[in-house]
Amino acid sequence: MEVTVVGAGLVGCLLTCYLARRGHEVTLYERRPDPREAGAERGRSINLAISERGLDALRRLGLEERVLSAALPMSGRMMHAQDGELTFQPYSADGRRSINSISRGDLNRLLLDEAAAQPGVTVRFGHRLTSMDEQTGRLEFDTPSGSVVEKASVVLGADGAFSAVRARLRNLPGVDYSQEYLDYGYKELTIPPGSGLSQGALHIWPRGSSMMIALPNPDGSFTCTLFWPLADFGIHDISGHFASVYPDAFALMPDLSADYAANPVGRLVTVRCSPWHVAGAGLVAGLVGDAAHAIVPFYGQGANCGFEDCVELDRCLDATGDDFGAALALFESRRKVNADTIASLALDNFVEMRDKVASRMFLAQKRVEHALERVLPGRYVSRYELVSFSTVPYAEVERRIAHQRRLVAAGALTLAAGAAVALRLLRRR
Amino acid sequence: MEVTVVGAGLVGCLLTCYLARRGHEVTLYERRPDPREAGAERGRSINLAISERGLDALRRLGLEERVLSAALPMSGRMMHAQDGELTFQPYSADGRRSINSISRGDLNRLLLDEAAAQPGVTVRFGHRLTSMDEQTGRLEFDTPSGSVVEKASVVLGADGAFSAVRARLRNLPGVDYSQEYLDYGYKELTIPPGSGLSQGALHIWPRGSSMMIALPNPDGSFTCTLFWPLADFGIHDISGHFASVYPDAFALMPDLSADYAANPVGRLVTVRCSPWHVAGAGLVAGLVGDAAHAIVPFYGQGANCGFEDCVELDRCLDATGDDFGAALALFESRRKVNADTIASLALDNFVEMRDKVASRMFLAQKRVEHALERVLPGRYVSRYELVSFSTVPYAEVERRIAHQRRLVAAGALTLAAGAAVALRLLRRR
Repeated sequence: MEVTVVGAGLVGCLLTCYLARRGHEVTLYERRPDPREAGAERGRSINLAISERGLDALRRLGLEERVLSAALPMSGRMMHAQDGELTFQPYSADGRRSINSISRGDLNRLLLDEAAAQPGVTVRFGHRLTSMDEQTGRLEFDTPSGSVVEKASVVLGADGAFSAVRARLRNLPGVDYSQEYLDYGYKELTIPPGSGLSQGALHIWPRGSSMMIALPNPDGSFTCTLFWPLADFGIHDISGHFASVYPDAFALMPDLSADYAANPVGRLVTVRCSPWHVAGAGLVAGLVGDAAHAIVPFYGQGANCGFEDCVELDRCLDATGDDFGAALALFESRRKVNADTIASLALDNFVEMRDKVASRMFLAQKRVEHALERVLPGRYVSRYELVSFSTVPYAEVERRIAHQRRLVAAGALTLAAGAAVALRLLRRR
Repeated sequence: MEVTVVGAGLVGCLLTCYLARRGHEVTLYERRPDPREAGAERGRSINLAISERGLDALRRLGLEERVLSAALPMSGRMMHAQDGELTFQPYSADGRRSINSISRGDLNRLLLDEAAAQPGVTVRFGHRLTSMDEQTGRLEFDTPSGSVVEKASVVLGADGAFSAVRARLRNLPGVDYSQEYLDYGYKELTIPPGSGLSQGALHIWPRGSSMMIALPNPDGSFTCTLFWPLADFGIHDISGHFASVYPDAFALMPDLSADYAANPVGRLVTVRCSPWHVAGAGLVAGLVGDAAHAIVPFYGQGANCGFEDCVELDRCLDATGDDFGAALALFESRRKVNADTIASLALDNFVEMRDKVASRMFLAQKRVEHALERVLPGRYVSRYELVSFSTVPYAEVERRIAHQRRLVAAGALTLAAGAAVALRLLRRR
């Protein structure tokens, strides 16, 4: 079957691989030029942390090893206090599980190579979707050489947080939609090679109202992301600010002022849309990845969730005999609740990362949690581990966490009751 | 100053009158043809109930009498039970205050005449805004004779729930936006003249999961609106349904089947947007009325709220010396909370209208409420009266209602405590 995929980013490329494996003829449209020729867009990325959900999706296509060979494992968070003190917090109870730092550009090029190499796949760069009519099946693209009209019967929008496919959906009667921005922005900065920072951790400088993170690159550099209230980015003396708020990082950032001046401030948006698909007389269209459910980056799940979408949609195509209309409806019925859940968790985690990770109470809680995990292996698993090191659906993670908390509370009550009985017996003697 | 108003509906026309009175030169663009020549759009209106907020806005321009002469006062709700029993519920404690039924088309033509007659006002029909660039001040319109480009420095979007001005705002970074549809739709139906129904009431057929309302027209007919879950509109035997669910109305609707087949199903949407305005290098733009805050019709406040917007924006222009950028910011800071409040009240009132008004408990509550109003004149006023018969800001209405409830609860407690003391004294004897 002929399938049109809009957007050759991470999810669009992986989805194309999945569809090609099913024998579909895929035309993949991308509004930007070929990143393998044009060079990476610089200065506005947030490094990715690929974890189990993303790896699982890659593994099913035999791509896991190639991706991991370009990535660096991070087994925990390294907190940088303002006085320079370092505290390492492992991500898993046994300290052995890792999330994997990889540059968005490297991963995108790898997946694009893979998609383009599949039989039946055509990739068209420089094609920006400007209109889609589900009644006639007509698509219109803006290209460097003018407007181009195509026909399609199946359109999958993997075109990101500002999706053009979703823009059409959003104007249909009955489509609920919301976009909510944080009052925070982000800016990419760099720590060049030779800093001496551990490559095996995700570094965090939590400062309450702001925070910086740094993820390792294979060349020894770190890609830093500064999260800050939008109003504060206008600061004049960025060096002075870093010298006082991030002193240990400041010493490692010789290009701070130039990077700061050159790189744009990115915005952080959460997008919700319902339904994700439309079936017209001319075509069926559906959304996957950020196009369906853009989330903020604070749980490191944006790409992982988008990759997992591809696995789920593939399952739904299995279940419906590649009837895309039925598959997209099934996909939404299974996947929406999970997308909503991770969207909320990602927003909540911002508070945890910028603020709580620095508190002694939070560190103590994490230690108690990891102790429970060791005492009750497989029966008590932290939310972070279920999100990052399993493929348990996000909504199911939340149910398990609620259940575990009830169990622990009941256990504590039992202990307390037991202690009260013991005390009474002792008094009687 | 030259001001561009987009949308010659109710709010756009009234706003133009207000701006012309301030001495501004207004160009008013409307995507439809002139309704005074083209005839009214039929079969998709919900009759309006103009109440104090709308009347106040009209009164300030000397338009109240003209509008009221085309309207019919309704002093309460007439409930039609399934067995045909009628119950009248006055809107005010003294039974003397009314809301006013008027056709949207009549009111629009009246206000359009008024706007077009103002010095400095130009009206351009058949102009659909297709793009707006706040950096260059460039506007583009689609017209029957092709595309037209204009320059503007102030643009006010009064172009309704599906506003083109808002569509541009919504794509700017940092603009929060949501649209939420009800699972209910509506359809216009008609009761022809000579039905014998009272013209002095708003008629309601509350049926739990559905409801119908009817508002009187000067020719003796009633414009009915059927609200129903979307899925149910596909019914085959509409006559059979009406005969069993709305038997008394069914007897008065000879054209039911034809009306039902001819008229479209309308959708009910709540739109929230923030900010409502943008200041670019080329122009400042702002939203008013449904363009800023589309609400569902169940409190009869959509047009009233939009008219009140015009009064508030006029005050903000007073306060800022007609600096539109500053006035729009001030307008939003004062008005947003009120728009959010009436949006919620309108959603809540749907449940009340379709369900609760039929219950004996609800009727008893209303009688207690009106009794309190008579006992505590001016100190206890029902929410409905504060919304419909005052210009107390919507958010302030909610504060007063919460305060009154606390007072009544405290009074009840005092009474109970007094009774307990009395009882104890009696027992001692």
